[in-house]
Amino acid sequence: MSTVKIIGGSRPNLPWQDRPAGCEAPVWRYTENPVIRRNPIPGVARVFNSAVVPYGEGYIGVFRGEQTDGIPHIYLGRSGDGIRWEFDREMIPFVDENGEPFMPSYAYDPRLVKIKDTYYVIWCQDAYGAALGMAKTTDFKTFTRLENPFLPFNRNGVLFPRKIGGKYMLLSRPSDSGHTPFGDIYLSESPDLTYWGRHRHVMGRASQWWENVKVGGGAAPIETSEGWLLIYHGVTGTCNGFVYSIGGAILDRDEPSRVLYRSGDFLLTPEEWYEERGFVPNVCFPCATLQDADTGRIAIYYGAADTYVGLAFTDVETVVRFIKEHDTADQSDREPGRR
Amino acid sequence: MSTVKIIGGSRPNLPWQDRPAGCEAPVWRYTENPVIRRNPIPGVARVFNSAVVPYGEGYIGVFRGEQTDGIPHIYLGRSGDGIRWEFDREMIPFVDENGEPFMPSYAYDPRLVKIKDTYYVIWCQDAYGAALGMAKTTDFKTFTRLENPFLPFNRNGVLFPRKIGGKYMLLSRPSDSGHTPFGDIYLSESPDLTYWGRHRHVMGRASQWWENVKVGGGAAPIETSEGWLLIYHGVTGTCNGFVYSIGGAILDRDEPSRVLYRSGDFLLTPEEWYEERGFVPNVCFPCATLQDADTGRIAIYYGAADTYVGLAFTDVETVVRFIKEHDTADQSDREPGRR
Amino acid sequence: MSTVKIIGGSRPNLPWQDRPAGCEAPVWRYTENPVIRRNPIPGVARVFNSAVVPYGEGYIGVFRGEQTDGIPHIYLGRSGDGIRWEFDREMIPFVDENGEPFMPSYAYDPRLVKIKDTYYVIWCQDAYGAALGMAKTTDFKTFTRLENPFLPFNRNGVLFPRKIGGKYMLLSRPSDSGHTPFGDIYLSESPDLTYWGRHRHVMGRASQWWENVKVGGGAAPIETSEGWLLIYHGVTGTCNGFVYSIGGAILDRDEPSRVLYRSGDFLLTPEEWYEERGFVPNVCFPCATLQDADTGRIAIYYGAADTYVGLAFTDVETVVRFIKEHDTADQSDREPGRR
Amino acid sequence: MSTVKIIGGSRPNLPWQDRPAGCEAPVWRYTENPVIRRNPIPGVARVFNSAVVPYGEGYIGVFRGEQTDGIPHIYLGRSGDGIRWEFDREMIPFVDENGEPFMPSYAYDPRLVKIKDTYYVIWCQDAYGAALGMAKTTDFKTFTRLENPFLPFNRNGVLFPRKIGGKYMLLSRPSDSGHTPFGDIYLSESPDLTYWGRHRHVMGRASQWWENVKVGGGAAPIETSEGWLLIYHGVTGTCNGFVYSIGGAILDRDEPSRVLYRSGDFLLTPEEWYEERGFVPNVCFPCATLQDADTGRIAIYYGAADTYVGLAFTDVETVVRFIKEHDTADQSDREPGRR
Amino acid sequence: MSTVKIIGGSRPNLPWQDRPAGCEAPVWRYTENPVIRRNPIPGVARVFNSAVVPYGEGYIGVFRGEQTDGIPHIYLGRSGDGIRWEFDREMIPFVDENGEPFMPSYAYDPRLVKIKDTYYVIWCQDAYGAALGMAKTTDFKTFTRLENPFLPFNRNGVLFPRKIGGKYMLLSRPSDSGHTPFGDIYLSESPDLTYWGRHRHVMGRASQWWENVKVGGGAAPIETSEGWLLIYHGVTGTCNGFVYSIGGAILDRDEPSRVLYRSGDFLLTPEEWYEERGFVPNVCFPCATLQDADTGRIAIYYGAADTYVGLAFTDVETVVRFIKEHDTADQSDREPGRR
Amino acid sequence: MSTVKIIGGSRPNLPWQDRPAGCEAPVWRYTENPVIRRNPIPGVARVFNSAVVPYGEGYIGVFRGEQTDGIPHIYLGRSGDGIRWEFDREMIPFVDENGEPFMPSYAYDPRLVKIKDTYYVIWCQDAYGAALGMAKTTDFKTFTRLENPFLPFNRNGVLFPRKIGGKYMLLSRPSDSGHTPFGDIYLSESPDLTYWGRHRHVMGRASQWWENVKVGGGAAPIETSEGWLLIYHGVTGTCNGFVYSIGGAILDRDEPSRVLYRSGDFLLTPEEWYEERGFVPNVCFPCATLQDADTGRIAIYYGAADTYVGLAFTDVETVVRFIKEHDTADQSDREPGRR
Repeated sequence: MSTVKIIGGSRPNLPWQDRPAGCEAPVWRYTENPVIRRNPIPGVARVFNSAVVPYGEGYIGVFRGEQTDGIPHIYLGRSGDGIRWEFDREMIPFVDENGEPFMPSYAYDPRLVKIKDTYYVIWCQDAYGAALGMAKTTDFKTFTRLENPFLPFNRNGVLFPRKIGGKYMLLSRPSDSGHTPFGDIYLSESPDLTYWGRHRHVMGRASQWWENVKVGGGAAPIETSEGWLLIYHGVTGTCNGFVYSIGGAILDRDEPSRVLYRSGDFLLTPEEWYEERGFVPNVCFPCATLQDADTGRIAIYYGAADTYVGLAFTDVETVVRFIKEHDTADQSDREPGRR
Repeated sequence: MSTVKIIGGSRPNLPWQDRPAGCEAPVWRYTENPVIRRNPIPGVARVFNSAVVPYGEGYIGVFRGEQTDGIPHIYLGRSGDGIRWEFDREMIPFVDENGEPFMPSYAYDPRLVKIKDTYYVIWCQDAYGAALGMAKTTDFKTFTRLENPFLPFNRNGVLFPRKIGGKYMLLSRPSDSGHTPFGDIYLSESPDLTYWGRHRHVMGRASQWWENVKVGGGAAPIETSEGWLLIYHGVTGTCNGFVYSIGGAILDRDEPSRVLYRSGDFLLTPEEWYEERGFVPNVCFPCATLQDADTGRIAIYYGAADTYVGLAFTDVETVVRFIKEHDTADQSDREPGRR
Repeated sequence: MSTVKIIGGSRPNLPWQDRPAGCEAPVWRYTENPVIRRNPIPGVARVFNSAVVPYGEGYIGVFRGEQTDGIPHIYLGRSGDGIRWEFDREMIPFVDENGEPFMPSYAYDPRLVKIKDTYYVIWCQDAYGAALGMAKTTDFKTFTRLENPFLPFNRNGVLFPRKIGGKYMLLSRPSDSGHTPFGDIYLSESPDLTYWGRHRHVMGRASQWWENVKVGGGAAPIETSEGWLLIYHGVTGTCNGFVYSIGGAILDRDEPSRVLYRSGDFLLTPEEWYEERGFVPNVCFPCATLQDADTGRIAIYYGAADTYVGLAFTDVETVVRFIKEHDTADQSDREPGRR
Repeated sequence: MSTVKIIGGSRPNLPWQDRPAGCEAPVWRYTENPVIRRNPIPGVARVFNSAVVPYGEGYIGVFRGEQTDGIPHIYLGRSGDGIRWEFDREMIPFVDENGEPFMPSYAYDPRLVKIKDTYYVIWCQDAYGAALGMAKTTDFKTFTRLENPFLPFNRNGVLFPRKIGGKYMLLSRPSDSGHTPFGDIYLSESPDLTYWGRHRHVMGRASQWWENVKVGGGAAPIETSEGWLLIYHGVTGTCNGFVYSIGGAILDRDEPSRVLYRSGDFLLTPEEWYEERGFVPNVCFPCATLQDADTGRIAIYYGAADTYVGLAFTDVETVVRFIKEHDTADQSDREPGRR
Repeated sequence: MSTVKIIGGSRPNLPWQDRPAGCEAPVWRYTENPVIRRNPIPGVARVFNSAVVPYGEGYIGVFRGEQTDGIPHIYLGRSGDGIRWEFDREMIPFVDENGEPFMPSYAYDPRLVKIKDTYYVIWCQDAYGAALGMAKTTDFKTFTRLENPFLPFNRNGVLFPRKIGGKYMLLSRPSDSGHTPFGDIYLSESPDLTYWGRHRHVMGRASQWWENVKVGGGAAPIETSEGWLLIYHGVTGTCNGFVYSIGGAILDRDEPSRVLYRSGDFLLTPEEWYEERGFVPNVCFPCATLQDADTGRIAIYYGAADTYVGLAFTDVETVVRFIKEHDTADQSDREPGRR
Repeated sequence: MSTVKIIGGSRPNLPWQDRPAGCEAPVWRYTENPVIRRNPIPGVARVFNSAVVPYGEGYIGVFRGEQTDGIPHIYLGRSGDGIRWEFDREMIPFVDENGEPFMPSYAYDPRLVKIKDTYYVIWCQDAYGAALGMAKTTDFKTFTRLENPFLPFNRNGVLFPRKIGGKYMLLSRPSDSGHTPFGDIYLSESPDLTYWGRHRHVMGRASQWWENVKVGGGAAPIETSEGWLLIYHGVTGTCNGFVYSIGGAILDRDEPSRVLYRSGDFLLTPEEWYEERGFVPNVCFPCATLQDADTGRIAIYYGAADTYVGLAFTDVETVVRFIKEHDTADQSDREPGRR
């Protein structure tokens, strides 16, 4: 019986496959991957790097849709089983605080997080440089834009699913203006989602080679009895470009700039054809998870090769044990992040 | 009934497949692609980025043959149906104006254009840097080298298939000495194919992301009732290299530096295994078309992954309508190109 | 009689020289420059890029002292006339909120701004990358560190000398991790100097060549009857490195992300030996001004060649008229800054 | 009957397949490639760039095992037939001269060479930069580290299988600290494996495009009646990264800095899916051969895409004739290498 | 008595100083250098890289004026003695063929050449990239723009002062879009100044270190009894930027792509304060000469540090002998330039 | 009375000036600097980065002479007082072991060290890349070339003036092929000056900013009662290029890879016009010292701005105390260098 508990609700219809016999890996792929293939929407060539949440009896999500003009925008999709998705043909029509239409010139890599009764979308957009954009919705009809939390250049904004110490908590990765060859994960807090501060370093690129170029937050952290389970991406560089793998860490529940455990081994790395070939070869980029507190099952949604959406599975017992067994966090990681 | 007419001859035996049911794309691939596979000639590892024209009852073409020493040269090929090709085992033996042998140290990305009764080959070669080379033939036996039209650095020279305003017209892309990360298409004119001038800007990289790094002329422009139909390549950059897609535009018939329409969406982008994998992954590079004025059918020959030759189809009605519907040309594009 | 008024106090003993006869430039140098020369403090090789304020009957300032180990720290200096300076031999001993010593591993390019009865020092320091640091003092004995306002990478933090709309206002320049070849000026606001948000773009690099690489805030803005007078630095690049000149702009008094006027011509550019030669040739880098509301006189302190401190003069009538006459701001500049 | 002789022993159970009918290439692939696939050892994601030697009735080898933390180390493997390999689960436990454990922080691209009764392992490791490491063993149980032969930065150390002129001979490639875009092969000699000198240039990048970026020694040279047969790697660059092919040359038996013949054509270039896709696409990287003097058969082991091990075959008659027929060595190559 | 003759007119009032006693250098500086200092025109901070010709009893010239907004334009200047210059306050008002005003967004490094009764100005301007612009005048009042001779990217256009073989002849340097780290000199010809062709390579960067990065034409070639004397610039690179020196070569009179002699030693290199310090340190950039056929005297005008104009002297006997004595041209240089 | 002793001979006529009154710096400049100015030899534009030794009653040295073709070679010079130098007009005529002439294509930055009765010259030359060259002489007439000690890329070879532990000891800096932006000092040993090994790391770039890009050995180490006094160069980078300063360290007498003390402050940094301006601005590059054991006086010869030779003074007591007082060596520095 599992000794690690997910703090959260039941989700009996979670997408799921058991670990294949003989497989020792901590995370295993859905056999019918990719779940979203090329040209899923008229005028949209590829969907990837996207995020989903439970909604009613089924699921809803925000999807990076790379249009046939090459420009990414965010599209809404719905699914009964989390596997077969139907998309709106038009991108999400954001409005500003006054209800006037707001549409960034591009938007990509969205995350979707529910805090109490409100759903927050965070993405990357232009603000004289790549910056985080944010919006909220309660009904998935009206998406009201909020203030940008940070100055450019920043990517991979990931909200925690509840306040901690009375503050909203946001992971992000300060970047530069291009294909940044460096990047660490930081934590920032806010009393009101408008003003952000008390920035703390969480974790940086590591000596492990698979994540020695940059790291960035992936899915919204999963609260467990052991701490916040963070599924993130780690990047290494070869003479033929970057390789994006999936990693795992556990952050302190009350002070999440403290990294309690961090796996020195990746959880998943590009191996399959839909991860190796495509618009950007060798990319596995996680943006969301679904989980069921009753069984401890976790389904991970990840972008593959900037071309597809893949699905992979684990359970909280397995992945937490794996992270602990391959732990590389040291004393300084376990202390609160420096500023 | 088609309202857009191709200005040109009949070609009843054009390679052709109808658009697959359910396909909404403006250009569709030949199902038996690639039509030229690896090692097609002894001592030549890969053939790609090549150009063909009708000749007699069948077809003839000039082909970039990447030798097993890695150096590209131009080879002659013949075909009855435009699909199955037979190649000369030796590269084309150019001669200079005096009939003395001329062989550039390398030659690549040839185009082949017929003007009146003469066929012109244009390629890229060394002239203390990458420059355009040019030759003419009337019998595909004697290929007489002409003056290089421009100083280095220049690539992608594409002749118009007839004089305009009494002048020869040549598209090209000024470059730098390496894997140039920028590039616009220009038009130059000449009274005699020796002296070139009156250089005009035609079109540059665009805000559409699929062509935001550089663009270059592809096939010889097709004259239509709407203007010159230009099938070209547009390039974008990812953290793992360049991606080459195929785009379309319509130029003014009398003043072709005026861009009447330009599709903001690509016509075709790498999606198939022979486009995604090979010597240079993610490349679709068009160099020639064949067309039939009676039916409006167009066959596009394109290099795939610097490794194969692929064939794709469209018809003039479909592609012109698509370009117009996705038009992004603005007033300045429609004016004559600046110098 | 001057029609432009400085909003502020009297400063009868301001350092001053009249504009030389025949000089048409809007800003003129002190004839005895540089006012701070090499090796002014034991163990400190060069002082430059430094800021001063009136204090008592004289002046006080925070100075970038490049130690003989090459590492910059901040030193306190005092002067009766603003020209001859005496420095503490030890760097400023910051403390944290609990009174414990705090010393960044390096600190450079300080600014010094008085708001009500408190003096704020802002500098650039390491926080896993170059970031803004901030401290406050009321007596120039105890300097209490505040939260870093932003994530890295950021430089050139400049506070406004009063709250606007009830909020603290801070200019800054988001950067990358090295010798950043780009950079725009942004405005951020805060209710409490801990949490920062509502970030707005103020002005970017310009088409004028002397500031076509990057711009950054310089001295604390001077409040005038025409708006906030901003003395800033603009940078261009040559094949032999960057050149830093001094520029001028006028911001809206109530909504300072609105640029009312911006001079297309520099106010001062490296011309003298102490600006052309030194640790970093060709740098004029303004960090502070002193001004006298009675006469409109302004004294500008600027770093020269990362080696010296220079002094230059203008008056508010002259400089505002010059900025207006050479104005290049357009309608979009005059609107509130986008986020 | 073969006129070229391998100087060496019999190996009747050499892995082998005859050249396929119709194949004219000088080297042909094993039809069951790759012989080592992903995840061959628990905790090791990929094995590639590895070397083997005959041992007893079967074979033994040193293997680059890329761990699931992304860091490479060297693993021992054994095989009865040279095709199916069994690996130790732990990396090789090197010891220093005193028998104390020695483990480099990483180690990659090992070679394995027998000289008289001793086996030498050479690899690349950190010594304040990428440098060659070396160890010896006689029983494959105790591996005693030797002095590093060179200063950093150096890669691809390949020992000759016997002394020449009474000296040990080592090929290597001086490099820089990253993904070096240049590289020539040098020869160094030593009386005692501790002190190295008399460094001579052997061969550089060539005008042939497939090897115009860099070259490096591959397998231990094979002694033949014609000279030392060197199977090496040659690299070219595309806009989408490096491509590694396999080349061949023949060095003088007594003075191996003299290149007698060098093939201007590659012997093998990436064409198969396991060479085109993987962690580093488009890499064929030879590290060892096995050969049988009785039949002249040669089996080449090569890393594929930094992900797999492939096997290819040739025979000494075929490959030497091919190298001579495509010879590009000139007089200066045939002279002793300059220092 | 001089055995080398300048082919040209008398110029008794040529600026001149005799070679200082003890000086062995082939070119010597004017002792009152720089002849044009900072801020010579209101709104123009620096004048440099400029060209002059005899005109009436005195001299006239076109000058690169770097405005106080940092943008270069071309200004007209007049002088009685070639040393003291008076400038128009407004830049030259070019018109197009229809007499409509034409003003490039920037223009720099002008040359000025008289052919028969017409004066031609050639400069570098934007044409979607740095390109050569050209204009003609007969009265220095109306300057009529001609077609751009070449596509971008090109700099340093230098016309020969007479037709050769019935064609206009133009030297230029194909470049890239930035601070090009390479560059050779080419020759192109034209029957009509509109259409250009028959491009030939003249000379490239050399193994001599002072000109091992790039070379470019400087002053209009001087016709002598030995051939065309070309005063050009050669550039080398240091860890602290480029260094521009002045070199000399002699081209064949009838076929000037043939380099008869080329000095392996520079004629002049930055040594004086006005050459070492300024906007771009370490630049000597020749753009024009004046000469007197009676005495063989030559005055060289050169830009210094992108900040000043300097004047240097030689005589045809001295400089031709120096070039011959330090000749490094080989047989391939002496042959007609390859295309 | 001095407590630190120089182990060595008397040199009563050492060039010398006492420390100026009020000067606290550990090293002070000769007031008549530079001692070698521009154009000191016909055909040689600049002499710098050069080394001297006592010889007979006076001094002799090897000098980097940058010819007027820009290529450096090594020239011999003689002086009675160490200040006024006379140079041979021809470069040093090296011979190989057989007495045949040997001349590298270029040679720069020579050092000169006497061991017993033989003088060794070490320089940087081409060996398919920048490598160390070495020669020996006993009479300064015949200079016999020795084996290159290392593979390229390597610079700054500095011999110890005696064997240690029965071996020759050589400091060097592994580099890359260009203006290397990194570099550490290593120690290698040899029994015979032909075979080199047992390479050990001595010291790397430091956290002190003035030496945070690279460091390299300068003068031959001076043996003292405290250890080997090493005068070296440290380099930092600015947006306008590298800055070279002079640093000091003390190495263990018996095991000189152990750094006993290392000054965190530079000893001398570019401040004077002849150090700030020239071919490469901001360079102080020490290559030799002279010392007198009787008085402890030390004269340092250093290249200035790649244009001049400067002279500076210190005494052993002062400089050793300074190094100890500013020591930044830690425990790992004091241990033998890792390999």
